[in-house]
Amino acid sequence: MVNVAILGFGTVGSGVAEVLTGHEGSIARKVEQSVALKYILNRHDQPDSPFAPYFVKDFGVIEADPQVDIVVEAMGGVTAALDMTRRALQAGKHVVTSNKELVAAHGYELTQLAREQGVCYLFEGSVGGGIPIIRPLSQCLAANEILEIYGILNGTTNYILTRMIRAGLSFAQALEEAQAQGYAERDPSADIEGHDACRKICILSAIAFGRHIYPHQVPTQGIDKVCLEDVDYAAAAGKCIKLLGRAIRQEDGRICAYVAPHLVDQSHPLAGVEDVFNGISVRGDAIGDVMFYGRGAGKLPTASAVVADVIDIACHMGYRKALCWAQGGPEVACGTQGLATRWYVRGSAEADALCNALGGGTALRREGAAPGQAACITTRALTQEELEGCLDGAGAWTAIRVLN
Amino acid sequence: MVNVAILGFGTVGSGVAEVLTGHEGSIARKVEQSVALKYILNRHDQPDSPFAPYFVKDFGVIEADPQVDIVVEAMGGVTAALDMTRRALQAGKHVVTSNKELVAAHGYELTQLAREQGVCYLFEGSVGGGIPIIRPLSQCLAANEILEIYGILNGTTNYILTRMIRAGLSFAQALEEAQAQGYAERDPSADIEGHDACRKICILSAIAFGRHIYPHQVPTQGIDKVCLEDVDYAAAAGKCIKLLGRAIRQEDGRICAYVAPHLVDQSHPLAGVEDVFNGISVRGDAIGDVMFYGRGAGKLPTASAVVADVIDIACHMGYRKALCWAQGGPEVACGTQGLATRWYVRGSAEADALCNALGGGTALRREGAAPGQAACITTRALTQEELEGCLDGAGAWTAIRVLN
Repeated sequence: MVNVAILGFGTVGSGVAEVLTGHEGSIARKVEQSVALKYILNRHDQPDSPFAPYFVKDFGVIEADPQVDIVVEAMGGVTAALDMTRRALQAGKHVVTSNKELVAAHGYELTQLAREQGVCYLFEGSVGGGIPIIRPLSQCLAANEILEIYGILNGTTNYILTRMIRAGLSFAQALEEAQAQGYAERDPSADIEGHDACRKICILSAIAFGRHIYPHQVPTQGIDKVCLEDVDYAAAAGKCIKLLGRAIRQEDGRICAYVAPHLVDQSHPLAGVEDVFNGISVRGDAIGDVMFYGRGAGKLPTASAVVADVIDIACHMGYRKALCWAQGGPEVACGTQGLATRWYVRGSAEADALCNALGGGTALRREGAAPGQAACITTRALTQEELEGCLDGAGAWTAIRVLN
Repeated sequence: MVNVAILGFGTVGSGVAEVLTGHEGSIARKVEQSVALKYILNRHDQPDSPFAPYFVKDFGVIEADPQVDIVVEAMGGVTAALDMTRRALQAGKHVVTSNKELVAAHGYELTQLAREQGVCYLFEGSVGGGIPIIRPLSQCLAANEILEIYGILNGTTNYILTRMIRAGLSFAQALEEAQAQGYAERDPSADIEGHDACRKICILSAIAFGRHIYPHQVPTQGIDKVCLEDVDYAAAAGKCIKLLGRAIRQEDGRICAYVAPHLVDQSHPLAGVEDVFNGISVRGDAIGDVMFYGRGAGKLPTASAVVADVIDIACHMGYRKALCWAQGGPEVACGTQGLATRWYVRGSAEADALCNALGGGTALRREGAAPGQAACITTRALTQEELEGCLDGAGAWTAIRVLN
């Protein structure tokens, strides 16, 4: 018998409790022993919950119980979650989480601690909700040198962009709708400013490239400045706007990781990833491009990823290879300064003048464009510095990178 | 040190040799010991090959060498491959393969034998080339009840259909082009008649549903009867034709597995899977729909999947949970008789008469249609028997299922 304790009883914690108990029989068949829920750490009184018999308020009970094999940290945030994760690992318990904020900030320390203790620290649910990505990246693509990872990592912003593209809503209207649908939080800043995608690209980079990259090393731009004119101009070029997290291995071994909106061609598989879905593309030297697609968040998808980690640990009690990587540092990540791409540029200028200033470009047309405003896509790949040099003195302008 | 022997030195075998030796350093870091190539079973004399020092002609040498830990079977076919796989497993060696024909026909026996011997029999490369699918399905989605799997499982036929759709080539022209490009074999029957996709859906079904389904239990239809008129009519309906392998869990627990062309809506993620790419969609009760996309064949993608299995075994020497399932039987699989879907129907009739005969339908139009010929998509979902009943006495007709 393998005993599990869940820390927290919010969306993810209650989902894990449901999946663990609801699939008890099939999980026991897979593990070849029963996997039983023993405790749920819940600071609220919820005597009417069907899970009330499992509730405890003191983490010390879980920490001190030698029968608890696996702890599911489903509290979110960093402070208490970090403290309890450390204590659970130090007590020789395996820990599973979907807490991307914690893994992005403290993943190196926690995976090392787990390794020292001979236990696992797993977090399949931290990126892409229920989409299998951490295990495929660390195991199935293990024979590859990973060259690049990029994808739509945040469902909330993808929903907002999809509504702007499909229904012509403004950013503010689409955000309001996303909040009404429960896809965006009341304080949506972590999503729309790109911080959530930033944490996820940090985690994917650590797995793919073997070094920790910290969120503060990743230039991060959200979608709050994307406006309907840009959406329309992009459509005129056969492209759509997507918020991408991206990490590229440079020739010197450094990783160029960043989060920013991109113009993506309609023929690219990521262009078809709509609404709250996520899509993650990985390029390896042997495999070429592979893409993973699915529901990037939500109670049951995330719970299913967490419980898959629990099953993996229970199947290989004590023998599963640790998932870990090397410490990061200022030498690991480079900014986007050296990254040359084509750009979409919109400015207060005549189209010809704008294209000329950029050393060549394709002018874009849209209905209802204000006179004296133009947009184009550059012919050449330019770094941000080169772009700024070209547009020096050209008045107000907006620019978005073009993917490939 | 972990020692590997490769059986066969064709496309896959030579690719595995290249990836194993070319990534020696990074593989050793992952496994924390070196993984060395020791033998290659090659019945040809190739003294100029850089791998010549590894060549042996007698499988007995590999079988009898207690230092060989992992055997990669890359011979293809069933007879010799089955014999040597059995002997390797009986000698206590782990076996890795991408041989879908062997796994589909003898996977139950071989996984059982591996389990009895306390070794692994792994075959990530047998479905979807380098696309991670077997491990995600068996591990990452382990907390789900799998409801359905369907996908584009054969790159050759997808290339042919893509060229018919995009370039207006006839089936025969597109096949000839695929052969010239090296995407189709000189005898293309295993691909175009659907047998390759059939083997793959058998393997996916075993992993997803836990019972072996044999190829002869899977009604299999290829693309050799798809013609340009159908491609055009489908386009008029906003759909494209894709060859899908599909396995659906029925309410009575039986599995409806089959291979057939389908009309797929342009908005469906599989519609964008073009050329030799594969796309596999999995529906679980917790996760909803997830899709895996990538290059479904080719030397290095397949080799990368095979080597990932080698790395997994080497990382968990002797402790990896066996991948296995229960024996199949006539009670496991049901045919497609009970499967009601909408249908695309083309016949020698007036459009109205055709729609009426089918109990309602949407007539499709295409340029250059011959008079007296019409096509429509049925309004109702019908079983094959019901469809045949509707069209009894209606002259010659062709029908293709519509996906959802």
